[in-house]
Amino acid sequence: MTNEIRIDPALVENYIMTLAQYGAHGETGVWRPVYSPAWFAAQDQIATWCEDAGLMVHRDAVGNVWGRLEGAEGGKTILSGSHVDSQLPGGRYDGVLGVLSALVALKTLKEQFGAPRRTLEVVSFCEEESSRFSQARHWGSRAVAGAIEPEALESVISYDGEPIGQVMRDVGLDPDRIADAKRDDIDIFIELHIEQGPLLEEQGIPVAVVSGITGIRHYHIDLQGRADHAGARPMDLRRDPMAGAAEIISTAVETAHRMGRPAVTTCGMMHVEPNAASIVPEKVRFTIDARHPNPDQRELLYARHEAMFKEVASRRDLEISWTLGAEQPPRPSDPELVSLFQQAATDQNVPFITMQSGAVHDANRMADISRMVMLFVQSKDGRSHTPAEFTSVEHAVEGIRVLTAGLRRLAY
Amino acid sequence: MTNEIRIDPALVENYIMTLAQYGAHGETGVWRPVYSPAWFAAQDQIATWCEDAGLMVHRDAVGNVWGRLEGAEGGKTILSGSHVDSQLPGGRYDGVLGVLSALVALKTLKEQFGAPRRTLEVVSFCEEESSRFSQARHWGSRAVAGAIEPEALESVISYDGEPIGQVMRDVGLDPDRIADAKRDDIDIFIELHIEQGPLLEEQGIPVAVVSGITGIRHYHIDLQGRADHAGARPMDLRRDPMAGAAEIISTAVETAHRMGRPAVTTCGMMHVEPNAASIVPEKVRFTIDARHPNPDQRELLYARHEAMFKEVASRRDLEISWTLGAEQPPRPSDPELVSLFQQAATDQNVPFITMQSGAVHDANRMADISRMVMLFVQSKDGRSHTPAEFTSVEHAVEGIRVLTAGLRRLAY
Repeated sequence: MTNEIRIDPALVENYIMTLAQYGAHGETGVWRPVYSPAWFAAQDQIATWCEDAGLMVHRDAVGNVWGRLEGAEGGKTILSGSHVDSQLPGGRYDGVLGVLSALVALKTLKEQFGAPRRTLEVVSFCEEESSRFSQARHWGSRAVAGAIEPEALESVISYDGEPIGQVMRDVGLDPDRIADAKRDDIDIFIELHIEQGPLLEEQGIPVAVVSGITGIRHYHIDLQGRADHAGARPMDLRRDPMAGAAEIISTAVETAHRMGRPAVTTCGMMHVEPNAASIVPEKVRFTIDARHPNPDQRELLYARHEAMFKEVASRRDLEISWTLGAEQPPRPSDPELVSLFQQAATDQNVPFITMQSGAVHDANRMADISRMVMLFVQSKDGRSHTPAEFTSVEHAVEGIRVLTAGLRRLAY
Repeated sequence: MTNEIRIDPALVENYIMTLAQYGAHGETGVWRPVYSPAWFAAQDQIATWCEDAGLMVHRDAVGNVWGRLEGAEGGKTILSGSHVDSQLPGGRYDGVLGVLSALVALKTLKEQFGAPRRTLEVVSFCEEESSRFSQARHWGSRAVAGAIEPEALESVISYDGEPIGQVMRDVGLDPDRIADAKRDDIDIFIELHIEQGPLLEEQGIPVAVVSGITGIRHYHIDLQGRADHAGARPMDLRRDPMAGAAEIISTAVETAHRMGRPAVTTCGMMHVEPNAASIVPEKVRFTIDARHPNPDQRELLYARHEAMFKEVASRRDLEISWTLGAEQPPRPSDPELVSLFQQAATDQNVPFITMQSGAVHDANRMADISRMVMLFVQSKDGRSHTPAEFTSVEHAVEGIRVLTAGLRRLAY
């Protein structure tokens, strides 16, 4: 094998900047909800580039776009890709870089090494971000994993109030064919993604091999007290759910902080009733997002949080209840694939670290039906889910070289 | 003087229940924004009852309704009243009971004792509650105190986006005549009000003489950090404004609690940006309402709060700024009037306590141009600003007896 994989930086930059025009938002952002005209235009562009690269293009029942490079030996597929739907607004790199990297990798391998021994595919999944449907997160990869219940077509509702089945029909997709999108012939899934955090930048390293994806849980907490006049009710006679929420949030953040990396806990959402300056609230609803990639430490984090939620509510005479959302167990990467991509990075002289993913990805779903590994490339200032997110072409090329070298090891 | 003042409970109950029909909301609530048809109907009913009681009725430039019982000696007025606009929704008693009590008192005095020596008046002020305009709080009493700047007609905007000057014109009032509502001939203002807190009920006492009204300040705080991915950004590298807000709210509540009654501090309002479960917020805006009736203790409370706001923001690397709202210094009642109403309650064999008001009232504005005192009657469960607020006819009658006895001492 030739040691050095050559990737054309001008091609990578052109792909990124061209795709950024579909749903462009302000100077550097994109606004690309699934099944919107901007999203279809981006998917069409991916399909065109796949055809130009000599891949066989296929669109499945939910709108995922596939490009296939048939292997001489046939057999199960080695797949790489991500998504092009965005946060509203989001940036140019989240998801997009994974799709474009897979496309560049297959195009490069075909050009430089000809037909592979094993079949390679690139995929651009739909609706990774809950861009239009809060309950449709990972819609495309869920369809491929066969994990969409038929009821979801009616029960998954857009932010505008439309059922996803109806939205699909309106754009010419047949929701009754969703089961056709299921695949049982995928051996390996590799997702390249921006890091979305600051660790690579801190250490001056372009690439990480991801040893696993963290476990996540969302607590949607209702804390009910008693609305009172903010002047006339003495402090010692209050049942103040805001004071309770503030204590719970402070303590939960402190618990994760003291447990140390990679434990994290976040309150990102709060709604107050009635939300008036002079009224002690009646009810406060808020979220606690808590993550740990180690199964035992994760359970310990959740046990500490839940015991504290109950203790604070009880001591303050508040009624507390919660529901769970976004529940995902930790997903370790396939150890052999981790080793293989570490070796590929070493061969390509690309500096790398091995780290956990604190974010959830399509890779979570694909891990249900295939062996999985991820690659990260450096994010400027650790930003993502914002027009401010940025990854340099130089770092992107380093990541694509590792991806391509690994795919070559697997498929040639 | 006859010792015992007789008040007709059936009259009081009829007045309360009749007025509750204007803008009735659900079983026990009212929805009566200023200058609405329901509010005008309530004001018309007050005017009719004043006429029926033999009072001279007058409506001023802002829509306050006045009823006058001329004193034989002339001279400055002894005034009592409150307001009939409501929270949305509010209850049947807040404000209303003060207007009806003044009406019943003047009617009773006239019937039982004839014409007074000094002039007595009843008033039903408009827009005490910010029922329709957030910046028009105490609009009626501000007009009487001469405290409305002409610019307010354009700058005070309703929750529907209409300037108050335009709304006044639309209902047939002439905003250019606001200055005519100013009075400089009011010697004494007495406002009877529901307590809105639990202290009278706790002690089983129907009535309080109010020795002063608390000082109030609203802090509108902006806490700015950096939005980050809730999974990918380690705890130790965050600039999380929600964690900062939670610490500030917890500490401010604790500071007031430890300072002891009557210090109070409340966070009743919060807005989070972008308010998503998986995103460390970029910005948290929230209010801190802090009150103390003692000027020195009030300044101490504010100094402790402000030093803590700054310390928390600095330690957490957050940008903090705040504006002040609802700024009202403490308003001590006139000591001679406090003594006189304490004596009136004693004479009437009405059990009473002397306490501070934790809420702000039209009496704050009237204290700028007259001697002021307030009376409280018991609130069930200390509730107010809700359809659940309730005061028994029995307790209302006890309060009206004290009011009437005090007015008799002052005017006969």
